Amino acid sequence: MTQGRRQEPVSKKISESAVRRLSLYLRALEELDRAGHETVSSGQLGFKCGTTAAQVRKDLSLFGSFGKRGLGYRVEELILAVRDILGLTRPWRVALIGAGRIGSALFEYTGLGHRGFEVVAIFDCDPSKIGQEWGDSIILDVAELERVVRELDVEIAILAVPVEAVQGVMDRACRAGVRGVLNFAPLRLKVPEGVTVKDVNLVIELESLTFALRQSR
Amino acid sequence: MTQGRRQEPVSKKISESAVRRLSLYLRALEELDRAGHETVSSGQLGFKCGTTAAQVRKDLSLFGSFGKRGLGYRVEELILAVRDILGLTRPWRVALIGAGRIGSALFEYTGLGHRGFEVVAIFDCDPSKIGQEWGDSIILDVAELERVVRELDVEIAILAVPVEAVQGVMDRACRAGVRGVLNFAPLRLKVPEGVTVKDVNLVIELESLTFALRQSR
Repeated sequence: MTQGRRQEPVSKKISESAVRRLSLYLRALEELDRAGHETVSSGQLGFKCGTTAAQVRKDLSLFGSFGKRGLGYRVEELILAVRDILGLTRPWRVALIGAGRIGSALFEYTGLGHRGFEVVAIFDCDPSKIGQEWGDSIILDVAELERVVRELDVEIAILAVPVEAVQGVMDRACRAGVRGVLNFAPLRLKVPEGVTVKDVNLVIELESLTFALRQSR
Repeated sequence: MTQGRRQEPVSKKISESAVRRLSLYLRALEELDRAGHETVSSGQLGFKCGTTAAQVRKDLSLFGSFGKRGLGYRVEELILAVRDILGLTRPWRVALIGAGRIGSALFEYTGLGHRGFEVVAIFDCDPSKIGQEWGDSIILDVAELERVVRELDVEIAILAVPVEAVQGVMDRACRAGVRGVLNFAPLRLKVPEGVTVKDVNLVIELESLTFALRQSR
């Protein structure tokens, strides 16, 4: 097997859950790297991430050939490869839209900046918030959304706005060039072509918990 | 076809994504109900939720026979059935552990209480926070976690604590009787038997966005 050979996924459809596991592998690999480990087996990596050696090998094989039979993966090389697969080898320009409680919790969320997500603009519609400074950023009037998104070439919008505003705000952000959206409003958005949306919905998370708890009675 | 017949899922494994779609169907059905609609077709319901009529029928068929061919589903009956499937026909006692920014955003999150999730206790370890009142709740010392979880029969813990504390706090909560955990710390928890954990990890959500954006270049 060759080491670190990376193929472009041709027409294979990669499942959402495989991508999520890649994120977990990356976390685990970075931890191993910080602890001074140079190699890791698929079994060890799987164990750290709550999955099996076979699953680790299968997930990685979707993207190329990594590791040597009997020797495992070189931690540093696999970190670079997984970062590349996940699109993390360059920073992403993010706008936070909505400077309420959820927005502020997100902004303070440790590690967002360290992980290559650069919050280049924050927007709100509340006159008492506009002009406030959060870190190095000034909260801007959401009326300026299109202009700022275009000028700063914002790629990802985090939507932490009330449910009744979210579709309109997303449409405006996407018309101005945003291609990725993380939506915290409990609403299924109508998504323009070429745009990817991920929903974070606490009620849905809680309901998938109660579903599981109910079944396990 | 009979109407509203509900079977216990026998040994069928229900996918995480099917359960998430049920949550979306429920939101859409409640909206239709508020707007005065008495029936809905699988096509209409699918359209509102960004999926197909066939997917709606397949998801619901996992749990029984609902709806009449050519007549669609009765909205009110299907709401009751889906609420029952998701375990939402009774309230759940929730403890919020961690009264920082994420915790406070969660607590204020509109609709948590209305959806049957009753926050019966809030914990923190910061002496300046302990004793503060949030709504009807007083923030308690996390040292009292086990006693309070037992006394109030807490079923679900929302963990909004720093990553280095989260495993210990979860272990304590579960030993005291918690069976469901919603974890906001970016760490894969080691889960005691009989406990269900859902992770909400913003970095993982963002990375699944960048993965998609990178592929679509």
